[in-house]
Amino acid sequence: MTARIDTTVILGLGLIGGSLARALKARGFSARVIGHGHREASLARGVELGVIDDYTMDLNAALEGADVVVVATPTLVAAGMLERILPLYAGREEAMPVITDVASVKGNLQRAAQGAWGGRMPPRLVLGHPIAGSERSGVEASRADLFRNHRVILTPDADNEPAAVQLVRDMWLATGAEVVDMSVASHDAVLAATSHLPHMLAYALVDALAQSPASDDIFRFAAGGFRDFTRIASSDPVMWRDIAIANREAVLATIDQFSGHLAALRKAVDTQDAEGMLQTFSRAKAARDEFAAMLEARQRN
Amino acid sequence: MTARIDTTVILGLGLIGGSLARALKARGFSARVIGHGHREASLARGVELGVIDDYTMDLNAALEGADVVVVATPTLVAAGMLERILPLYAGREEAMPVITDVASVKGNLQRAAQGAWGGRMPPRLVLGHPIAGSERSGVEASRADLFRNHRVILTPDADNEPAAVQLVRDMWLATGAEVVDMSVASHDAVLAATSHLPHMLAYALVDALAQSPASDDIFRFAAGGFRDFTRIASSDPVMWRDIAIANREAVLATIDQFSGHLAALRKAVDTQDAEGMLQTFSRAKAARDEFAAMLEARQRN
Repeated sequence: MTARIDTTVILGLGLIGGSLARALKARGFSARVIGHGHREASLARGVELGVIDDYTMDLNAALEGADVVVVATPTLVAAGMLERILPLYAGREEAMPVITDVASVKGNLQRAAQGAWGGRMPPRLVLGHPIAGSERSGVEASRADLFRNHRVILTPDADNEPAAVQLVRDMWLATGAEVVDMSVASHDAVLAATSHLPHMLAYALVDALAQSPASDDIFRFAAGGFRDFTRIASSDPVMWRDIAIANREAVLATIDQFSGHLAALRKAVDTQDAEGMLQTFSRAKAARDEFAAMLEARQRN
Repeated sequence: MTARIDTTVILGLGLIGGSLARALKARGFSARVIGHGHREASLARGVELGVIDDYTMDLNAALEGADVVVVATPTLVAAGMLERILPLYAGREEAMPVITDVASVKGNLQRAAQGAWGGRMPPRLVLGHPIAGSERSGVEASRADLFRNHRVILTPDADNEPAAVQLVRDMWLATGAEVVDMSVASHDAVLAATSHLPHMLAYALVDALAQSPASDDIFRFAAGGFRDFTRIASSDPVMWRDIAIANREAVLATIDQFSGHLAALRKAVDTQDAEGMLQTFSRAKAARDEFAAMLEARQRN
């Protein structure tokens, strides 16, 4: 089997970067996968585990000879990486490898890239976001099948080279993922609604209860439903601070939309509007049951 | 083995009533368990499954000879049942069996009982609430071990006969539950915080997203975290409408408390207050991790 490309470079070898490295090697998409980061122990462990073939802590050396560069650092660090990398190819864009990323927000990276590239998107920078994760983190937790049957959203730009978009698409298809295109604005709005807003609600709820005078009793009598509802409040605070900063506008918009609906429901409770409550709860149950059935069907495939 | 009491009557043979009947028979607490309800097919099925020994659709016949009566109907129906039953014992409280219930809200039942008993609590009416449930419902789903290692909250009143409280406590201990006493107000506040508020938030969130113009995309790209967070929005709308009506004041108070915290978090997102967000998220994560560890330790026992 001939590999599709020769060298993939992963910048940031955590759960996502490590799992992508494993998948690309396992599926023969890339002949070599090189890691780059600032924690040598983690990179050396990546070689030891067979996640990557080699590593370097020198960014210029990492970029040298790369066919595809995947920025797999935390969200806010990714913007800084693009601001460091893109100027290296100013005036010689034909030397630029295909660059992509895995961050949870796309708008801030688009702005960073356009800022570093004269107001346009670099033709070979294709932003992307695999909708996959795990409660665990780090290269030790990486798995070649992390993306199988998961969605990867790409946000190709009119300025992108079609061949660059195709290569990033092929890379994700090789991991077993389903690849979907969206605009940057749609991506950030959809992720704000389905992921960023729920995290804000879960954090706000648990913090509110923890600060309540009755918090001991509250947590003593909470049960399984509360555990499921608050699971995402156990997520990494730094990661979510960064996402809230990176996706500020969309997060604010979804909080406001939600707050409007909560205020309407509060009014129905206050006025004992039995019919209004029943309609809201029934609509929500129908939507959630449909969603759960769809997710189950997808995971059976 | 001699049974602790002769006859237990269950009013309303659903998941909770049926599971209690099974547990009391299995543990030999009650020599006979009689069911009462308005759907004969369900009662007959209860006999067929061995959940109850016999049934009647006549309330007066059911009460006749009962040592313990458990009102296991839906929340709002339970208030109406107390208003029907208590006047039957006016002027002859020594003839009243020990009466208890399983409803999710206690304040409305306390008010109903006091209203039907001259402003005091009847000495033999001991309100209670087993913190247990299942995604399934109905007598078919009943299980003798539903309450094992779960909490049951009793809200004994100064007007209660100590022997009546003890009998209800013994009944729940026989099912393998842990019995805890609280005031009616504390019960309703704690349940509002840990159960009623999360349900309102989940319903409001899913309904807000379902009504969004982008709802197709939103549900298409939601993943496992969203499924856990919204699981409780698949709960029975009628049951939750009734709980919101029965526990109106406490639900409104927790919505307001939560809304204040959400507004503070919104402000931190708006002003990109990185330190403030990190503090909120970190406090919430610590509280939630501690809660999850506690719940896990309890379930291991």
